[in-house]
Amino acid sequence: MISVVLIGAGNVAFHLYKAFKTTKNVTVIQWYNRSTHNIYQFQSEVEICDNLNKLKAADLYIIAVSDDAVAKLSREIPFENKLIVHTSGSLNVYDLDKKNRRGVFYPLQTFSKDVEIDFKNVPICIEVLDKKDAPLLKSLAQSINSPFYKINTEQRQALHLAAVFVNNFSNQLYRIAHEITDIKSIDFNILKPLITETAKKIQSVSPYLAQTGPAIRNDKKTINRHLKALEKDLHKDIYKLLTKSIQETHGK
Amino acid sequence: MISVVLIGAGNVAFHLYKAFKTTKNVTVIQWYNRSTHNIYQFQSEVEICDNLNKLKAADLYIIAVSDDAVAKLSREIPFENKLIVHTSGSLNVYDLDKKNRRGVFYPLQTFSKDVEIDFKNVPICIEVLDKKDAPLLKSLAQSINSPFYKINTEQRQALHLAAVFVNNFSNQLYRIAHEITDIKSIDFNILKPLITETAKKIQSVSPYLAQTGPAIRNDKKTINRHLKALEKDLHKDIYKLLTKSIQETHGK
Repeated sequence: MISVVLIGAGNVAFHLYKAFKTTKNVTVIQWYNRSTHNIYQFQSEVEICDNLNKLKAADLYIIAVSDDAVAKLSREIPFENKLIVHTSGSLNVYDLDKKNRRGVFYPLQTFSKDVEIDFKNVPICIEVLDKKDAPLLKSLAQSINSPFYKINTEQRQALHLAAVFVNNFSNQLYRIAHEITDIKSIDFNILKPLITETAKKIQSVSPYLAQTGPAIRNDKKTINRHLKALEKDLHKDIYKLLTKSIQETHGK
Repeated sequence: MISVVLIGAGNVAFHLYKAFKTTKNVTVIQWYNRSTHNIYQFQSEVEICDNLNKLKAADLYIIAVSDDAVAKLSREIPFENKLIVHTSGSLNVYDLDKKNRRGVFYPLQTFSKDVEIDFKNVPICIEVLDKKDAPLLKSLAQSINSPFYKINTEQRQALHLAAVFVNNFSNQLYRIAHEITDIKSIDFNILKPLITETAKKIQSVSPYLAQTGPAIRNDKKTINRHLKALEKDLHKDIYKLLTKSIQETHGK
């Protein structure tokens, strides 16, 4: 049984809390937030707390607050030599105060408050400074059925950057497609199966091999017609740049 | 029972053939290709043919060849007043020769030779010049369980353009992420659940509402660190441009 104190009340904290609640191997013995307002609804299930001086003894303290708040919070924790992890993709493990044993438990996924997520689809990137702390974090990941990977800070930061490309930027391409269809009164739903299939394809084929379309064929006629059809200059620039990127990747 | 003559032997033709074969409402009575080499393997199931003058009488002729070849091929067809459709996202319905009844049967999906596809995930964009030809094309789509939409040429060309954004360009973002992870010896598989979830999210939430990340938060610290971390100038440019696009969309 792993005892956990959860610190913070954002999306990651909420989803971790829900996942821990469903497993018998983990018990959240306390949930801290600067303001208990957000977590008040859980007070019948878990001790809630807004005073760092009242934190209980636990196997693990998980700091799931905004990046900017992590370092200061870790300094304010009144005890030492306990295992403390943050959940950030960007921060260094050394951003945690050195009086405690430090690590990272970074769930690489997009979390929305209202969208349920199965943690078997949430890879956990684990980092520790002291090897003997690794088994507990691995065991925690296993308890919620998450695949886990040993990832150092430099790798984690690269993953966080790569995640912006596949998540935020892909989503913006969906948004641009939505604008293009809206202008012509086309139901955006028509594109959804293609979006699903595009993401599905690279589960088994590399993105390199999965590429198709006018850019890789260097089909100038279609490319020029598309550029002419785009109404916004910014969309034209994105089209040109991603076409160039595809052609550089494939040596056209 | 709809009788079909299939013309062409590319990915679309192959997948349509397979789909038609599985339904009792459709019979492919003949398969034409300029060279029968590619379709020779099917000669025990269907009549194959490389001579346009020997095309049989059918309810529908589906021209599934490369865009550049459609107009010429439709002119070379020796009969008239039959229903002929092309399967292209880019071509005008008027690109078909006017001696026959003209239409479009455009499957909006990415097809690979070796990847099976369920046609319930292939929306069909239907266009006809004569209204009385619509029921047959709708019935054909229904026979293979495809959703279908009445889409005119202008809308179809907009969809084709939007498809480049959600398919080719998203895939290129996956490729860039692959490069970023490779450089740091990170397993690209770690990103796959995020890719799946990103595509899944917009099935129920608009891309506008689904957006998260440093661009929409205008988190300059993270954006600058990411730009510094990117090694290729082209990747920096893509990062900047898509960040700008997100911020314009969300009024930052």
